[in-house]
Amino acid sequence: MSSPSLDELTTALKCLPGVGQKSAQRMALHLLERDQDGARRIARALATALDSVRHCQRCRNFSDSDVCDICSDGGRDQGTLCVVETPADVLAVESSAAYQGRYFVLLGRLSPLDGYGPGQLGLDELEQQLSEGNTRELILATSATVEGDITAQYIADFAARHSVKSSRLARGIPLGGELEFVDSGTLSRALSGRQQMD
Amino acid sequence: MSSPSLDELTTALKCLPGVGQKSAQRMALHLLERDQDGARRIARALATALDSVRHCQRCRNFSDSDVCDICSDGGRDQGTLCVVETPADVLAVESSAAYQGRYFVLLGRLSPLDGYGPGQLGLDELEQQLSEGNTRELILATSATVEGDITAQYIADFAARHSVKSSRLARGIPLGGELEFVDSGTLSRALSGRQQMD
Repeated sequence: MSSPSLDELTTALKCLPGVGQKSAQRMALHLLERDQDGARRIARALATALDSVRHCQRCRNFSDSDVCDICSDGGRDQGTLCVVETPADVLAVESSAAYQGRYFVLLGRLSPLDGYGPGQLGLDELEQQLSEGNTRELILATSATVEGDITAQYIADFAARHSVKSSRLARGIPLGGELEFVDSGTLSRALSGRQQMD
Repeated sequence: MSSPSLDELTTALKCLPGVGQKSAQRMALHLLERDQDGARRIARALATALDSVRHCQRCRNFSDSDVCDICSDGGRDQGTLCVVETPADVLAVESSAAYQGRYFVLLGRLSPLDGYGPGQLGLDELEQQLSEGNTRELILATSATVEGDITAQYIADFAARHSVKSSRLARGIPLGGELEFVDSGTLSRALSGRQQMD
């Protein structure tokens, strides 16, 4: 490009997920040509977020304070703890509006090849919470993958040692799923997990 | 979200073209979870670009200095001036590597409804350059749209008054275009502009 600082902006924008050279270039030109206020706002929001976002001391989700809003909300069910892999998963469960308990964010899943063992998943903090004795049930909402399953099993064993029962999200046909297009693995789980009709 | 500064970052990222709520959320979480260095780099690059990028005094393209690298490059043909609508168009022509002259960026096109008249297109600066007498030919590389055509015609008339000849990019079938899938307007232009074979 004709301007080194525009070049650097384009390269920097490629740090965003799913953004390649062409999109980054389009974004850089758009911000400078048509939305300098937007550019200022992004720069300011990034600086603020980097400065003030930390992990909640109880659930490890992102938070601006030491304990996040969900953990400090006394109106939520203190007896159930939903264990998820990432902060994005918390947003997904929250948007279902079907859960009123607390969360625990692993920030990863057991994956020895990637260097993710029990130490990285904050199981010490989880143990601390289970030993407080308020928790009746762990809902294991890890991914429906091999690694997610292994992580869930590991945590379920761990919870059993603290006499806390664990449950796992139901597997089956997604809402609106047409049988013809559902993969065989999902169908097999849906069959084995079939439920009695009232 | 559980953090107001993460919320604000998500909202700010929606200023990027083609980025909606879901993508912005994914970008914000990605930057904070996995690429804080990238986030710092974007914030810094935005601040630098906002601070140092301006319009070249000769061609109106983006530049870090008063006169851009292309305009101050004595090795380029000073006699031809390629007139384009946006800085992105300069990049497109440059990437073709088929042009060695200078540029003039209109930063828009004639569009009375959007409030774009001759005054916004920098035609005073263009007139200044034409009156210097170095320019032999204007290559009008505006869009192949009604507004682009009107803009090109307006500038061609204007150049004629300064005894500078104008040319227009060829219209026809794009490289790799299969006749079956070419629209009728393009085909009609390709027929009327057919060229003698050697």
